[in-house]
Amino acid sequence: MCDGHEHPQPRRITLESDLLAKNDRHAEALRERLVHSRIVAFNLIGSPGAGKTALLEATIPQLHGIHVAVIEGDQATDHDAQRIAKTGCAVMQVNTGQGCHLDATMIERGLQELQPGERSMLFVENVGNLVCPALFDLGERAKIVVMSVTEGEDKPLKYPHVFRAAEALVLTKLDLLPYVDLDPRKLVEHARRIRPGLQVFPIAARKGEGLAEWCAWLRAHVEAA
Amino acid sequence: MCDGHEHPQPRRITLESDLLAKNDRHAEALRERLVHSRIVAFNLIGSPGAGKTALLEATIPQLHGIHVAVIEGDQATDHDAQRIAKTGCAVMQVNTGQGCHLDATMIERGLQELQPGERSMLFVENVGNLVCPALFDLGERAKIVVMSVTEGEDKPLKYPHVFRAAEALVLTKLDLLPYVDLDPRKLVEHARRIRPGLQVFPIAARKGEGLAEWCAWLRAHVEAA
Repeated sequence: MCDGHEHPQPRRITLESDLLAKNDRHAEALRERLVHSRIVAFNLIGSPGAGKTALLEATIPQLHGIHVAVIEGDQATDHDAQRIAKTGCAVMQVNTGQGCHLDATMIERGLQELQPGERSMLFVENVGNLVCPALFDLGERAKIVVMSVTEGEDKPLKYPHVFRAAEALVLTKLDLLPYVDLDPRKLVEHARRIRPGLQVFPIAARKGEGLAEWCAWLRAHVEAA
Repeated sequence: MCDGHEHPQPRRITLESDLLAKNDRHAEALRERLVHSRIVAFNLIGSPGAGKTALLEATIPQLHGIHVAVIEGDQATDHDAQRIAKTGCAVMQVNTGQGCHLDATMIERGLQELQPGERSMLFVENVGNLVCPALFDLGERAKIVVMSVTEGEDKPLKYPHVFRAAEALVLTKLDLLPYVDLDPRKLVEHARRIRPGLQVFPIAARKGEGLAEWCAWLRAHVEAA
C-alpha cells in the first residue's frame, strides 16, 4: 500500500490500520446488506490489460436469466463502462484519479445509482492493479484474480497477497499460450501453494473458450444466495 | 494511492502530502548525490508481467563498457534478482511485503550495498504496478514505462499519471503483436497525447529486436552525465 505499510514509522502504520479498519466496517455493513438483498458481488482484481473488461464482455451474455450490474473502476476515462454498456446491463464508472483501488464507500454509492434487484449479480472491476486492491474489502462474495497467460507463472509467488485473498483465478488470453513461455501447471501449482483450493478457470474470451465452467460457478453463487 | 487521495477527508490528504513531500526531499538529496557521482538511474515502472526483468536481461549484455547495477522491487521472493545476477551485474532485491512501490530511502539503502562507481548505470525495477510508483520520485534521471503489446492501446488514457511522469515508453513483447488486437500507432498517439515528446522503443526482448536504439538512448545518458 502506498502509505508505507512496510516502513518503520509507527505513526504511519497506525493510520493505515485506521483506514483499513474504517473500510472494513463499511464493507461489513455492505456485505450484510448484499446478503439480505441476495445480491452476489464479485470483485475482479488484475493488472491493467489482464483482460478483465473483455472477460465481462464475454461472460455477461452467457448469464441468461440473471440480472447483472457492473461497477467499473479506472483512474480515468469511461471507456470500460462504454464497452460494458453494449452488453445491455446496468453499469457505472468510478474514476479514482490518482487512487489505486476502489473502496467500500464507492460500491455503496454505485449500488445507490444502479439499484440492482434481488438475486442480481454485481461485478466490480477494480482499478487495474494486482497489489493494492487485495487489501480493501468491498463487501463482495468473492475476490477473483484475473491474470493473462502473458504475465508469467511466478506471479502468485511474487504478489502473494491478492492470491491469498481470492476464491478464484481466471487465467485469460489462453489463445496466446502457444506464443509465450508459461507452463499453466506450474502457475496453478504456485497459486495453490499460496491459496490451497483456489478455483482456476482458463479462458480465451475472444474465442468463447472456457466460459461454460466459469459461468456455471458464477450461477451457483446466485442460486445459493 | 492507497491512503485515500481521492477521498474527501482532508486529514488523509494532508498525511499523504506529508508522505510524498518527505519522499520528495529524500529523492532530491539522492538525485544530487547521483548527479555528483555521475550515476545515471532509470526507474522502470510497469504491471506485473509487463516484461521488465526480461527487458533488463536482454539489455544489460548490450551495455558493454558500462558498469550496471540493479535494484529489484517485488512484494516477495528474490526470483528477479536471481535472474539479473546471471547477467553478471551487481543486483539487490527489495521486498516490500504489502507495499506497492519503492521509495527513495530504499534506493539509498540499495546504493549503500551496491556501491556503484562513477559513470555507472543504475536500473531500478519498481514493484509491478502501473499506478502507485508514478507518484514516488526515486531520484532517478528518468522514469520509464514498460508495457507489453498484450495490455491494450487505451492504457495511457486510463492510467495517465505514470505516462505523464515518464521520459520513455518501452513497448515489450513485440513478437506477440500478430496475435493481439493492438494498433501500435494508436497506442503511441494516446501516450503522446498524455506526454508530448515521449520516446517510444518497441522491443521483442526474446528475439533481441529493437535493442540497439534503446541501448543507444541509455548510453547517451551516461555519456552526458
